Amino acid sequence: MADSAMTVRYAVVVTIGVFLLKSCSGEETDIKLDKKAQLLHRLDSLNLLLYTFLLILTVLTIWTFKHRRLRFLHETGLAVIYGLIVGAIIRYGFTNSSTIVHMPVVPEPDGSHYNQSVPPDTLWLRFPESKGDGTTKNKTFAYSFRGEIYKRDNEIDLKATFDPEIFFNIILPPIIFHAGYSLKRKYFFRNLGAILTYALIGTTISSFVIGALMYTFIQLIPHLASSFTFLDTLYFGALISPTDPLTIISIFNDLHVDVNLYALVFGESVLNDAVAIVLSGSIQNYAERYQSGSGGFETWAFFQALGDFIRIFSLSLFIGATMGCVTALLTKFTRVRDFPLLESALFVLMSYSTFLIAEASDLTGVVAVLFCGICQAHYTYNNLSVDSRQRTKQLFELLNFLAENFIFSYIGVSMFTFPKHHFDPGFIFAGFFCALLGRAVNVYPLSFLLNLGRNPKIPSNYQHMLFCAGLRGAMSFALAIRNTVSDARQAMLTTTSLIVILTVILQGGATTQFLSWFNIPVGVDEEVEVLSYNGVRSGGSLSMGGSTSKTNEKALLARIWGNFDTHYMKPLLTHSRPTLLDTLPVCCGPLARILTTTQQMTQDNVARRMDSDSDLCLEDRDTDRRRTSIQPLGTVTGEVSPGQQPLHTRVALPGLIGRHL
Amino acid sequence: MADSAMTVRYAVVVTIGVFLLKSCSGEETDIKLDKKAQLLHRLDSLNLLLYTFLLILTVLTIWTFKHRRLRFLHETGLAVIYGLIVGAIIRYGFTNSSTIVHMPVVPEPDGSHYNQSVPPDTLWLRFPESKGDGTTKNKTFAYSFRGEIYKRDNEIDLKATFDPEIFFNIILPPIIFHAGYSLKRKYFFRNLGAILTYALIGTTISSFVIGALMYTFIQLIPHLASSFTFLDTLYFGALISPTDPLTIISIFNDLHVDVNLYALVFGESVLNDAVAIVLSGSIQNYAERYQSGSGGFETWAFFQALGDFIRIFSLSLFIGATMGCVTALLTKFTRVRDFPLLESALFVLMSYSTFLIAEASDLTGVVAVLFCGICQAHYTYNNLSVDSRQRTKQLFELLNFLAENFIFSYIGVSMFTFPKHHFDPGFIFAGFFCALLGRAVNVYPLSFLLNLGRNPKIPSNYQHMLFCAGLRGAMSFALAIRNTVSDARQAMLTTTSLIVILTVILQGGATTQFLSWFNIPVGVDEEVEVLSYNGVRSGGSLSMGGSTSKTNEKALLARIWGNFDTHYMKPLLTHSRPTLLDTLPVCCGPLARILTTTQQMTQDNVARRMDSDSDLCLEDRDTDRRRTSIQPLGTVTGEVSPGQQPLHTRVALPGLIGRHL
Repeated sequence: MADSAMTVRYAVVVTIGVFLLKSCSGEETDIKLDKKAQLLHRLDSLNLLLYTFLLILTVLTIWTFKHRRLRFLHETGLAVIYGLIVGAIIRYGFTNSSTIVHMPVVPEPDGSHYNQSVPPDTLWLRFPESKGDGTTKNKTFAYSFRGEIYKRDNEIDLKATFDPEIFFNIILPPIIFHAGYSLKRKYFFRNLGAILTYALIGTTISSFVIGALMYTFIQLIPHLASSFTFLDTLYFGALISPTDPLTIISIFNDLHVDVNLYALVFGESVLNDAVAIVLSGSIQNYAERYQSGSGGFETWAFFQALGDFIRIFSLSLFIGATMGCVTALLTKFTRVRDFPLLESALFVLMSYSTFLIAEASDLTGVVAVLFCGICQAHYTYNNLSVDSRQRTKQLFELLNFLAENFIFSYIGVSMFTFPKHHFDPGFIFAGFFCALLGRAVNVYPLSFLLNLGRNPKIPSNYQHMLFCAGLRGAMSFALAIRNTVSDARQAMLTTTSLIVILTVILQGGATTQFLSWFNIPVGVDEEVEVLSYNGVRSGGSLSMGGSTSKTNEKALLARIWGNFDTHYMKPLLTHSRPTLLDTLPVCCGPLARILTTTQQMTQDNVARRMDSDSDLCLEDRDTDRRRTSIQPLGTVTGEVSPGQQPLHTRVALPGLIGRHL
Repeated sequence: MADSAMTVRYAVVVTIGVFLLKSCSGEETDIKLDKKAQLLHRLDSLNLLLYTFLLILTVLTIWTFKHRRLRFLHETGLAVIYGLIVGAIIRYGFTNSSTIVHMPVVPEPDGSHYNQSVPPDTLWLRFPESKGDGTTKNKTFAYSFRGEIYKRDNEIDLKATFDPEIFFNIILPPIIFHAGYSLKRKYFFRNLGAILTYALIGTTISSFVIGALMYTFIQLIPHLASSFTFLDTLYFGALISPTDPLTIISIFNDLHVDVNLYALVFGESVLNDAVAIVLSGSIQNYAERYQSGSGGFETWAFFQALGDFIRIFSLSLFIGATMGCVTALLTKFTRVRDFPLLESALFVLMSYSTFLIAEASDLTGVVAVLFCGICQAHYTYNNLSVDSRQRTKQLFELLNFLAENFIFSYIGVSMFTFPKHHFDPGFIFAGFFCALLGRAVNVYPLSFLLNLGRNPKIPSNYQHMLFCAGLRGAMSFALAIRNTVSDARQAMLTTTSLIVILTVILQGGATTQFLSWFNIPVGVDEEVEVLSYNGVRSGGSLSMGGSTSKTNEKALLARIWGNFDTHYMKPLLTHSRPTLLDTLPVCCGPLARILTTTQQMTQDNVARRMDSDSDLCLEDRDTDRRRTSIQPLGTVTGEVSPGQQPLHTRVALPGLIGRHL
């Protein structure tokens, strides 16, 4: 995107550096360049200041809202609205005084002819400068590659915009990591089957349905039909399908919504972000292959794209999980916990390197970081010192808060200031309609299918709530703003921005209302919930949660994993009991001894629980419970009487996220 | 700097964005560009990964060192050494496979002639692309301004380097803010006179002495004499004068060195960073004015530069202090402390906006952020909720740790990979000699002068330690790498890098040894220190600290400020007692009532102390103590008997910094 202020920012600050000294030689050009660079640096600081100011404003308003217990507008909604207001002020309140000067150039005629098929990385421009005494002197300036220009008259506007890649490389990773790190794993794993179905299958279906529908719509509108290909609309489907975890979840947190619904909504929206980013990448790869094979190998390209999707997703997952486990091993086998600052630094660095490793291997950093976060929470967190637990939790909570509000402010501001919007009422209308339909196609049929195999069914009011929780957010916007070269892409960006803004403000604001319409239990403690759930289930209206009383295929899978996790992964990666000495076969004794720490051996089970914080308690109890129901699995199923469950799961657990907010 | 990977990074990621879609049109150039962009993005991730890996390695090694109680090498020294090793591996282990392609260009002949004196911001290159069917199609690519090229043969090397401005805009601010935020204000204010003398006057003297000496040296070496002006050497003096707070302070922390020495070393090195950055800026401004006035107005330019120095320093200070106070007011008069996450976010945003406001007003963000940090610690910190106190402390501690180790790793790596080093043995030798001498000129004469007016004298062993604590660090390096256009600047960078590396490794490593040579009391708790100090002073060997027993001019100034602070600033900005109702004249009653919170009125003094953490206790007791010795100031001086002091200052206070490390 040629219009990214950040790119300019770097060019600018570099320029300052170069010219600060050079200006000592006192030539007119240098001083002017210096002035110009300083001006640009200042504008740039102002630009960042604008967003900082917006965030401060948002924070103060959120506080007022929370203080007065107003719930009709959520913080992300607020950030968007402030963004819109400020964006409008910038757009219409100021005239653009600093214009960018372009110069068309051609290769030097006497130079060796350039015959590569790729444009050069840098251009060197010899620039004649008139000196005071009437002579001229040639200077050489370097220019670096920015991108292709499609419309020569498209003025590059620097107002309050950033390089879209900033979202992918700086804003999204902490948000996604925090999502993984703060996942309530107990309920997540309990509803894993449903979550994976919604996220993996649902998002894919939704993308294809939206893609197909949009394509049909567009054929009806003549002026659009020419500029959109089916791949374009499919890409639109992929980018508009992921739902946003931020807004809805922080409302759920405030209201203490039923934990199973919470797990479904949160788990799905976190995972479908990951699915969408890989899916959209695969669609682009497909497009590339399809085109380069000049139309001959569509089926092959399709399978390649499918392979890409599976490969990228699973490898990214693998890298994330591995790095999480490596961190767990590092924190387990070194006594780095004696120095909490070092420990926290190690934790942050390992997590960040996960993102970088995935990106450097051409995989998807966001997906890797998500699963790294889950592993860090599941294993490493238990090894950390109390100080580091708190520090890492609070750090990522804060980063997440800032990043999330920044992105929503930016969505608001960019609606007015981003120069590449393309308002097409037909496309916008179709987009809204398809986004709603896509969400419905995701939720209802899959819930029906899930309920066939699932013993504690997903009741219809939960399904409605899942449908209504389908706000679009940061990921859709980030994917949309990444490519704005063609009219089609610009129309997509505009539509996506509008969908995000409206769903966040309207659906987000109406969430409390939805919850009461659909009779979703709110204000329940997790402890109370399990009890009330039992009571309610016997009344027949709710049938979620505590699903281990009867087994089905998915529960079996989850149990096998749970069993493996309790017996091998946790003993290996954390200080938890039982140790590998207990769980590994006798022949592996020496190995088990090496992999078991003194702390693990000597600690008392009770002391351990006292020592660890509630999240670990959750895990311990959870796995205790799971073990009691899993161990006799080979012979007897469904042997644990349902009556025992509430006792086992009656743990008061302050979750990781939103503890205070 | 044309060779900054970050600039390229942004260009690259932008390119990816642009070409991901465009590649769908399947033309050969696009696909190649896409591939290239992906490759560059990958290299870029690898580059960051390298530093992340270095930091992880450093963290693990530091842990081992701390674990085994090895003190001969400090963490920053370690980071530098690892950096050097990895830098050497990169330099000699890999051959540069991806070369940058340059193309000399001239303005389009038929275009309107460009007759501004400033080179254009963007170049548009029409690039012929051969299509499959033998025809060619012209595409237009945009190139953005990077800087001037001095030697055409100077290959731009992208290996493991960053834009130098990154240091100023991303790495330094958290380090400097943390320094201000973690300042032990009690001892800082007690030694304020000495600290200001060393930092303001000392750094300036040192800069000029080094500048003059270097200039003399250079006249003796013929091949250097032509390329250095006196302003160049003066600039070198300014950039090599600031000492580094990081290494020495974390050693002092580990060893619990006497708090007054700690305050002197820390206070001086924090402030002289601020002084150096403004000083070097003023020298450049002077150079600019001097040159543009074509040699006629040197005196005038000198006074302008002096005015600049004072204006920039005091305005930056003012902005920083104001923003700190505004944050204090915000946290005092809103109940945002009920939502610690919001409160922490507000704190971070306000602090960051201080930096941006200063930068946007053409002042020095680093100085503003330093004083903002001091005010935040002095006022805002007391209003924060317990959660936010911890969170902000821990956050900045972590950021500081990461930033500081990153910069030292980078110093190491860049020694080998930064393409603009210029090794000149003469200059390097002169640089080392002058740096030592400059430090001596700063410490000894000023200590002598200070001791004339100062009742508790600075003993000679403390002076020696101050001399030996003069490591150079992040600020010198950041200032040196900012400008590397000429041979002179490149020689300065090389010399500065070497001085930083050697002082950090050798002086840093020998600090423990120095402390024992100079008989500096170590292993003292602050509580114990005050007692032992009293005992030692009666023995005549130490005469620091507790300087309020006799007054001198500087102490008077400090007392007036302390009095004002206790009576007006703290009651206004924090919840502390006495309230403004007690301290303001009766006529201001209504105003005072508005500015006094219920919390402030209702709280019990004892409960208040129980509630607040040790740092506030420090403040409370400190101001209590100060009040008792200040209030009778108008009539009787020196009335407080020295015997009472230890009782008053006997507070065990775990300081902010290095609490765990």
